[in-house]
Amino acid sequence: MDSGRYFSFAGGPAGSWSVFKIATVIGAALPIVERLEILDGHPPADIAPQWVLRGVTSNERYVTRAEKGLLVAKQAGLGRPQAKLGAVIPIRKNAAWWSMTQDERRAILEEQSHHIHTGLKYLPAIARRLHHCRDLGRDLATPEAPEPFDFITLFDYAPEHAAAFEDLVGELRATEEWKYVDREIDIRIARERGK
Amino acid sequence: MDSGRYFSFAGGPAGSWSVFKIATVIGAALPIVERLEILDGHPPADIAPQWVLRGVTSNERYVTRAEKGLLVAKQAGLGRPQAKLGAVIPIRKNAAWWSMTQDERRAILEEQSHHIHTGLKYLPAIARRLHHCRDLGRDLATPEAPEPFDFITLFDYAPEHAAAFEDLVGELRATEEWKYVDREIDIRIARERGK
Repeated sequence: MDSGRYFSFAGGPAGSWSVFKIATVIGAALPIVERLEILDGHPPADIAPQWVLRGVTSNERYVTRAEKGLLVAKQAGLGRPQAKLGAVIPIRKNAAWWSMTQDERRAILEEQSHHIHTGLKYLPAIARRLHHCRDLGRDLATPEAPEPFDFITLFDYAPEHAAAFEDLVGELRATEEWKYVDREIDIRIARERGK
Repeated sequence: MDSGRYFSFAGGPAGSWSVFKIATVIGAALPIVERLEILDGHPPADIAPQWVLRGVTSNERYVTRAEKGLLVAKQAGLGRPQAKLGAVIPIRKNAAWWSMTQDERRAILEEQSHHIHTGLKYLPAIARRLHHCRDLGRDLATPEAPEPFDFITLFDYAPEHAAAFEDLVGELRATEEWKYVDREIDIRIARERGK
């Protein structure tokens, strides 16, 4: 894998984001932590997080060229100065989802659930980055610990768009696609003043 | 990741397959080895391979339900007693491939290059298993060593189908899809008598 695609989300006593909510939407909970660090690569050895989630950015799996054109025209990058609020939402989909073929998953994701077009409505207010975890190899150091989620999405936005963000996650959770989600944690984070 | 999807291909002085050819089709060569072990999981610490390639089996990326029905009806599993010959073919695709959207990659792979239907013609004589490497996380033990390939396909077949196997790889290499392959190694293996 080329460098720059691998990210770690380390929850614990230290980190540049403060965690103000960890809600279990469905499935097993994740331990509550006070802070979160989002790292390019592995966490350094000198921080001792309570948990670490890992993911890689990857090629488009469902988006068509026409949709990609619409997204690129509207989207903003993460890390804008006004984007002082964020969310990290790890989800897992069930075996029924993963046993479907590409055409079946695309039909549920977009033609039935309008996932791509729902996200598009909230651009550029809500910035996002999708990370894949399902096919991550297990680390040699922890061969018995598979990744607990299939995807991690990181969002950030200005406080004035907090209500719009609730609408976005609410719309997605009401879709046919979300019936295949069997674990979801909603972690809300805020950037520290001056960071 | 659930267990049972992660495989290692360890080339070196030991292994249950003998290597009778390692041909560089395009890109950088891979060091010649005498034997290959194909392992479910990581190689055990007591074998010292010259190189290890890793991959995970995953969900369908291009196949439709209709195509899947045709494949499942004809395909055979790996490891049949008569399948004494095999091939391990790691490939990497270039940045142009990975920057395409799903509809663009599907159009090249199947509508232009007939990849799925070409494979179908050679079933059940040629059995195969596809492993993905591109999104594998880097091991904590070797954080600076990204996986060198995007895919590894393992094939096995009876000696009487060796010519058919040459036809299969020849047909695929002549396609539009293969113009995006920038590294390919063709490793031919044979099962030892009695193993």
